[in-house]
Amino acid sequence: MESNKEHKKVIKGINPAFAKGTIKKEKPSLDVMLLAQEIIAGNHTALSKGITLVESTVVKHQEQAQLLIEKCLPHANQSIRIGITGVPGVGKSTFIESFGSYLTTLGKKVAVLAVDPSSSLSHGSILGDKTRMDTLSQNKNAFIRPSASGDSLGGVARKTREAIILCEAAGFDTIIIETVGVGQSETVVHSMVDFFLLLKLAGAGDELQGIKRGIIEMADAIVINKADGENEKPARLAKAAFAKALHLYPPKDSQWTPKVRTCSALKHKGISEIWELIVSYKDLTQENRYFTRKRHEQNTYWLLQTIENSLKENFYRDPHVKKRLPILLEQLSKNRISPFSAARELLSLKKE
Amino acid sequence: MESNKEHKKVIKGINPAFAKGTIKKEKPSLDVMLLAQEIIAGNHTALSKGITLVESTVVKHQEQAQLLIEKCLPHANQSIRIGITGVPGVGKSTFIESFGSYLTTLGKKVAVLAVDPSSSLSHGSILGDKTRMDTLSQNKNAFIRPSASGDSLGGVARKTREAIILCEAAGFDTIIIETVGVGQSETVVHSMVDFFLLLKLAGAGDELQGIKRGIIEMADAIVINKADGENEKPARLAKAAFAKALHLYPPKDSQWTPKVRTCSALKHKGISEIWELIVSYKDLTQENRYFTRKRHEQNTYWLLQTIENSLKENFYRDPHVKKRLPILLEQLSKNRISPFSAARELLSLKKE
Repeated sequence: MESNKEHKKVIKGINPAFAKGTIKKEKPSLDVMLLAQEIIAGNHTALSKGITLVESTVVKHQEQAQLLIEKCLPHANQSIRIGITGVPGVGKSTFIESFGSYLTTLGKKVAVLAVDPSSSLSHGSILGDKTRMDTLSQNKNAFIRPSASGDSLGGVARKTREAIILCEAAGFDTIIIETVGVGQSETVVHSMVDFFLLLKLAGAGDELQGIKRGIIEMADAIVINKADGENEKPARLAKAAFAKALHLYPPKDSQWTPKVRTCSALKHKGISEIWELIVSYKDLTQENRYFTRKRHEQNTYWLLQTIENSLKENFYRDPHVKKRLPILLEQLSKNRISPFSAARELLSLKKE
Repeated sequence: MESNKEHKKVIKGINPAFAKGTIKKEKPSLDVMLLAQEIIAGNHTALSKGITLVESTVVKHQEQAQLLIEKCLPHANQSIRIGITGVPGVGKSTFIESFGSYLTTLGKKVAVLAVDPSSSLSHGSILGDKTRMDTLSQNKNAFIRPSASGDSLGGVARKTREAIILCEAAGFDTIIIETVGVGQSETVVHSMVDFFLLLKLAGAGDELQGIKRGIIEMADAIVINKADGENEKPARLAKAAFAKALHLYPPKDSQWTPKVRTCSALKHKGISEIWELIVSYKDLTQENRYFTRKRHEQNTYWLLQTIENSLKENFYRDPHVKKRLPILLEQLSKNRISPFSAARELLSLKKE
């Protein structure tokens, strides 16, 4: 009787389980070739679908995603990839809104992606709310995608890297990758972009205190945001302080000298100057061939990184290793065993 | 006839092959227990022998070495481990000679080891020439050991870590690890010491230009050497510049504020002040328990590091991977494959 009732409801199209999402419709097999064609033709809906495929954890989807990437690859790589980082409150969304809108007036096609290692917990804190970029998200030459969630930064990074390829194949020539400085996310973003921009605030002791390991060194430009009204003078002082700090670092392989600028994203001031900076960076590094070399190095890095992550995950997932590791760590903390003997023992467990 | 002649020579004790070292006498099985006892009793010759065992690549020796380490471990860890780095010419040997000799006048027992990734090529450039530390090497309360050679920095690092344990078991309470800034050697040394000292020179543009990624941040003290004669003023200026640079970094977990000092190792000026600095560091970090916590973290780091290195070596040694990797890298450089597909293919090869 129960199943009959269910059947009737399905016929009526009001199966409550389905409505709650506990029963899923069998999807028709996705035509990857067609999807690739539509992406390459610049169809935003197809691009969204493609990225969803890339983000899926279903094995079948992952296989389809790889095929999709391969089809898109020959059409990718014609872009500038810009990484943008800065602490919460620095005005990243407002900056990207202003910067991205300006670029579309130059005829650029702008895609905005995000790497947010915290999003798997908070369910997408970065770009999760598209309304934060009101104007840009309604611009037909812009494409905004919230951060992929994932169980590891490595996973999020892979998805973002593959999303970049799809965006480029869809004709986006300016890719902006936003991140907030959580864990290693800045390093991860730095390893997938051509140009790395650090957003900063004047005052509030943020000028120098916030200089964290390696972030300043990674920056191709430091931009002091909110340089308007009473904040203009502190911003100029911060600019001078950062310019001095940048002198502490040795010259870069790119032969590019990192620059410091001020801007007010809210008032759209100083935005075009930042784009001019990025254009000169691209000109210089294409001239001296660093641009292509860096992309090759990044590809190799991702290849090796993926292998290493997989080897480690596989090792620590082993039940024997899982059982023995905490015991050896305990012995290690009491200096009863050397780290090298402990490692040797764990490695021998996995081989058996 | 030939073999008969050879035989006669052996009988006469003049086997030329033996003299040339091509025939080796069978060594009596080493009594590891006895060796451990002698090391713990403070016998320098036994300590040397123990370190040689640790450095050996012979499988049987490695097993004996592990047993020796285990016997010595309960007697280790009672020391301060000091890392010293600086570019060639900065006067590391002279500094260690002066600093180490001073420490012995305080009743300290000083062991000097080195991590030198270039030594496998140059056959030991650091401390290779013990005469560079003439006074110290003849001091009965000092022990100087040239850098272990090895085919990888990881290998050299493991040997040095184990040598530290043996030195400590032999009663050395002050362990100095010297390194020259080649590749990742500073990071490796930093991960095995309690206190990290960066030697610098004034003038010659070395004040700020030489600030390399992370090295300044790792330093617990920056010491401007050769602050004598005409160099005194530039050294003071360099001191001020470095003190300023150190302000760029956020406070350390240790709650220790890194210090800048000047010294003249040649004239033995400023040496006792550096030791006082290290004593205050030890007092502070033992008080706030950072000292022990850092050592535990270092042990865990070495455990995980050893496992990861071993997993990678094992993977890239696989003949299928070896054959396919260059082909995939070639395809990668032409953007015909994504780094993630390439990684997936290589990982599947190894599983077969």
